[in-house]
Amino acid sequence: MKENNNHLKNKRILITGGLGFVGSNLSIRLTELGAEVLIVDNMLPRQGGNLFNIEPVKDKVKVNISDIRNPTSMNHLVKGMDYIFHIAGQVNHVDSVKDPLNDLSINVEGTLVLMEALRMNNPEARVIFTGTRGEYGSSLSLPVAENHAINPIGIYAITNFAAERIVLTYHNLHHIKSVCLRITNTFGPRHQMAHDEYGVFNWFIRKAMDNETIPIFGDGRILRDYLYIDDLTDSMLAIALSENTYGEVYNVGSGVPLSFVELANKIIGIAGTGRVDHTEFTSERKALEPGDYYADITKIKAAIGWQPKISLDEGISKTIEYYKKYKKHYW
Amino acid sequence: MKENNNHLKNKRILITGGLGFVGSNLSIRLTELGAEVLIVDNMLPRQGGNLFNIEPVKDKVKVNISDIRNPTSMNHLVKGMDYIFHIAGQVNHVDSVKDPLNDLSINVEGTLVLMEALRMNNPEARVIFTGTRGEYGSSLSLPVAENHAINPIGIYAITNFAAERIVLTYHNLHHIKSVCLRITNTFGPRHQMAHDEYGVFNWFIRKAMDNETIPIFGDGRILRDYLYIDDLTDSMLAIALSENTYGEVYNVGSGVPLSFVELANKIIGIAGTGRVDHTEFTSERKALEPGDYYADITKIKAAIGWQPKISLDEGISKTIEYYKKYKKHYW
Repeated sequence: MKENNNHLKNKRILITGGLGFVGSNLSIRLTELGAEVLIVDNMLPRQGGNLFNIEPVKDKVKVNISDIRNPTSMNHLVKGMDYIFHIAGQVNHVDSVKDPLNDLSINVEGTLVLMEALRMNNPEARVIFTGTRGEYGSSLSLPVAENHAINPIGIYAITNFAAERIVLTYHNLHHIKSVCLRITNTFGPRHQMAHDEYGVFNWFIRKAMDNETIPIFGDGRILRDYLYIDDLTDSMLAIALSENTYGEVYNVGSGVPLSFVELANKIIGIAGTGRVDHTEFTSERKALEPGDYYADITKIKAAIGWQPKISLDEGISKTIEYYKKYKKHYW
Repeated sequence: MKENNNHLKNKRILITGGLGFVGSNLSIRLTELGAEVLIVDNMLPRQGGNLFNIEPVKDKVKVNISDIRNPTSMNHLVKGMDYIFHIAGQVNHVDSVKDPLNDLSINVEGTLVLMEALRMNNPEARVIFTGTRGEYGSSLSLPVAENHAINPIGIYAITNFAAERIVLTYHNLHHIKSVCLRITNTFGPRHQMAHDEYGVFNWFIRKAMDNETIPIFGDGRILRDYLYIDDLTDSMLAIALSENTYGEVYNVGSGVPLSFVELANKIIGIAGTGRVDHTEFTSERKALEPGDYYADITKIKAAIGWQPKISLDEGISKTIEYYKKYKKHYW
């Protein structure tokens, strides 16, 4: 993929949610490749936006604090862009239940405002949309391929699916080339570490690093697959640069299942501190818990030759190393 | 179903969009059965709301002009209701493309405001939500059963699916008993006849009655199934009264496929006037056209014993008869 990535040099790239976990890692990667990155982020509290996330490239990227729901901002910011990585979203599961209208507003209205801005001001741009494995709801068969039934439960998953379909409608109806990803649990540096309201993997890492108890709901046997952030950003760049991916939906994950309790014990082993304790599901968590999930990544492998390179152990080590060094910016 | 319907006597029923096509026919039916009907409707221009629609029961139903997106109204209006028939929606396909944010606002935000109002003020109410066959997108196999893939294309279909999933999330998470319908093309008295921006069947009837040309896109061989309004309202009452339907999704249709050109010729035959002309798809219509659809209605038949009773010919005759009598209120 090295050769391909040269095509990103001097490309103008807008990253929505660019101060958050995925957006900031992608911004750093793209800047290193010589792209001109413009970040738009609303710095909504408790959502992961953190100016320290882009410390390594802070003098090279442009940061525009605004909101994807603001048509005035978006109509201007999309102009002249070659690629739009649309990552901004309300991702906090607790807030999603407490304030579902806000979820809807950010995730769906925001996506619609962005796509309208592109339709009117820059229909030539390419859009890469980051959705969630949650769009599938409970798995009817495993691993889950892209043609699995769509049964999203919970406002967060529903709004992600609606946003994905909006993006694809603009691809089909208004010919704005767009590709959509359904991403599994991702972990790594630059994820917020302040609370456990989303991003369970990173929260486990914090609890282990602090030599505290990692709380496991139920028996902890539910399976997930986990992806290290650099593998995700690699996949996003390769997807963006492949002409044949537009109009399609791809799972992005490791495809390797692991239970929550195994994951917690692995983290504790690598960190050398921490312990596990089992606790009951709240009724709310139980109603929203989709059960086992791991991705079938055959489609993305076939389309772009991507596959994860970082082992789970290596990813955990790198993550712990990062937070040891920069703890004060995240705890 | 006669005996069952006695259970509706004196029941308090809120009908959103109650001045439109489906809502007004349902209001009349429920009032005849002795239910106490409260209609909420925003009388949005070109959406089908028409005070004449409820002429036969105008002294018996209560009409509240407001908007499902208004929490102040909805928080009050849902109180004490036994059943909520949630029918209000932006259904105009042309407006959906021109102003997608309005679609999103009415269909999804409106549904969320209604469900939040119920959660806070009347979680005991039962909700019957009316969605669309459009949620499936293009048919991968025919007839289309409820477990068919979900690939909605176009903001109208996407917002309907999102609304359906929101309703089911409130069923699962907040225990507000809800059931969702995916309804096929429905026709009959009280549909708006002023323009062709949605409701193609009724538009064909108008053109035939006016001895004008019925425009058929392409070769007119695309298949749909068509349902007469009284069969739809029958199904809605039976669904509402069956305890085992809550939490489920049901197709409602005739299950009998007919091409647009055959339909047009049938209408012309019964009306005794009109003619057919073929015209090209606009690129917009082509991009949004899902192709053949007819419903598999096995699930609803098995659950409640409902099936359509009115033949297509009888339905067309009744519809023409109604509009001959009340033309001035619709043309």
